[in-house]
Amino acid sequence: MENTDNFTLACPIPIAQYPQILLAHGGGGKLMHQLIDKMLAPTFGTTDIQHDAATFELPRGRVAFTTDSYVVRPLFFPGGDIGSIAVCGTVNDLAMAGARPLYLSAGFILEEGLAIESLWRVVQSMQATAQKAGVRIITGDTKVVDRGKGDGIFINTAGVGIIEHDLSISPKAVQPSDVLLLNGDIGRHGIAIMALREGLAFTHTIDSDVAPVADLVGQLLAAGIEIHCLRDLTRGGLATTLNEIAAASRKDIQIDESLIPVEEQVQGACEILGLDPLYVACEGRFVAFVPPQDADRALAIMQQHPLGVGACQIGSVTAETTGLVSLRSKIGVARIIDMLTGEQLPRIC
Amino acid sequence: MENTDNFTLACPIPIAQYPQILLAHGGGGKLMHQLIDKMLAPTFGTTDIQHDAATFELPRGRVAFTTDSYVVRPLFFPGGDIGSIAVCGTVNDLAMAGARPLYLSAGFILEEGLAIESLWRVVQSMQATAQKAGVRIITGDTKVVDRGKGDGIFINTAGVGIIEHDLSISPKAVQPSDVLLLNGDIGRHGIAIMALREGLAFTHTIDSDVAPVADLVGQLLAAGIEIHCLRDLTRGGLATTLNEIAAASRKDIQIDESLIPVEEQVQGACEILGLDPLYVACEGRFVAFVPPQDADRALAIMQQHPLGVGACQIGSVTAETTGLVSLRSKIGVARIIDMLTGEQLPRIC
Repeated sequence: MENTDNFTLACPIPIAQYPQILLAHGGGGKLMHQLIDKMLAPTFGTTDIQHDAATFELPRGRVAFTTDSYVVRPLFFPGGDIGSIAVCGTVNDLAMAGARPLYLSAGFILEEGLAIESLWRVVQSMQATAQKAGVRIITGDTKVVDRGKGDGIFINTAGVGIIEHDLSISPKAVQPSDVLLLNGDIGRHGIAIMALREGLAFTHTIDSDVAPVADLVGQLLAAGIEIHCLRDLTRGGLATTLNEIAAASRKDIQIDESLIPVEEQVQGACEILGLDPLYVACEGRFVAFVPPQDADRALAIMQQHPLGVGACQIGSVTAETTGLVSLRSKIGVARIIDMLTGEQLPRIC
Repeated sequence: MENTDNFTLACPIPIAQYPQILLAHGGGGKLMHQLIDKMLAPTFGTTDIQHDAATFELPRGRVAFTTDSYVVRPLFFPGGDIGSIAVCGTVNDLAMAGARPLYLSAGFILEEGLAIESLWRVVQSMQATAQKAGVRIITGDTKVVDRGKGDGIFINTAGVGIIEHDLSISPKAVQPSDVLLLNGDIGRHGIAIMALREGLAFTHTIDSDVAPVADLVGQLLAAGIEIHCLRDLTRGGLATTLNEIAAASRKDIQIDESLIPVEEQVQGACEILGLDPLYVACEGRFVAFVPPQDADRALAIMQQHPLGVGACQIGSVTAETTGLVSLRSKIGVARIIDMLTGEQLPRIC
């Protein structure tokens, strides 16, 4: 995600006069209206922002609806920012339900004293990411909390999408012998954040993998791939995600460590920080469970997409029904990998 | 809103073991899953909470979509709490677009150290309010921020509703000679909060007016009332709301102070606190713009509803097109009332 190019527009709020967010920016009066009318509505292209709700017609199909709040710190990091995550995270949740994302809401909780310039960067990044993802931000809300009762910017996005196929994509649809496909290397988002927080320096900066994967999923669906389950690898990483699916489907999953791509620098940073890349969050990676007869074709489609260049098969579903996930290590030893127990990486998204 | 009756269920999380929210409750691991699987999903009755998104079929019609974040403090106040506001606020925004509210999302931003018991009270209140409002909370998210970077509980709700009539309810539909109807006395929500913060004591406690008004609006629509515009009187109160509509419709609005009901104790508290009730937020009050020939019938419908007992006509739209709101005072003097400029009541919702 190269968002820096988008930060060249001048801030539409007179920064000399209002350099920081005041409590009044959330109070319902003139300053709040200035923020909405001059910054948020024109950037997001929302014409009916004065309304209590946005309205639209939906194409026929089942509707998917999801929400996530974003509290990542720092607000800006290599490869992205809280704005790009807030759009990608919700777009990806819709994509994981097999839906085509259409509309987002954006709820801001701003801390008194926040630089208006920071908000402006985030808002522009949200819009640039929404355009890439093919969604529109059509309704929103702004609240301000007193200094010391927030942390700069928290964002909630909710998303509405449409399901235009007859597949039932869910852990319940997972079948024995299903193949697990992954769209690229894991752990870059979490390590980009942790490296920044811990002041680690690398030969090359590790960029977050944050990206909207709905178009890639849409291509798989359009090609008629019989997708059984999809899940993005956010909080808790690959290991936790697979444990959720194994538990919900009551199927066993076997993955092979040697097949799971981890960039060399990410692996090195994990060793320094005492982290296991299997548990580190990604923001643009997902696993797809597909029947073996569709696996090669699905993999080819993924590898031809910019967000699936490094796609690979990492394991399969076994005939067991204990709901466990096992990892075959690089030296050939199999072990059960559990869900994350404590808090590995706080405020990663 | 009598929520206290709902707080008798035992907390489903073992409080002796986990009395407070930990960072790990937002980390994607076992504690977060416990919170979702044992408290949130069973209380909200969401079966597919494991999914990244909830899915549903919508009846035919235009879709309305809205969001609000809630940061009210304190979390609990006479007549309601952050949970009841978080449901009513979003339900009411949908109702104001003329939609029948159907589904809500709930995004929690919890501060490390929050008493689990407090979260449990709020979650139960949300569900009780959702039931009253006829909506279902079907998808959600939980994030935890470190101590001192939040303020107990922030909640975002987004809502989806369906518009099942052919009216275009918006400021643009406002017509000269339209009558303004109000469903009851104003200012109780704001004063309930401020009185608590300032330690004011009254003969009778002033309860917040927080309530879901969608059913009342639905009755007006079902009766074929030609509603031109609806708006709930939240941040900035009646004065700000009418200014928004006057500006957006480029019509002048005239209201009569002697017709606007303000409870005696609310009036007294406003005088002590130096507030004008016209600018104090409500959470269960709205204005409806209807043509004069429909006004009596609409008023009768409102007055027969529990949330419109005190409904009344407070003014009308004039033939002028300057976008101004004027108030005829009790002593007969007319003055222009402007939008709120500064911050009257921070964190009122």
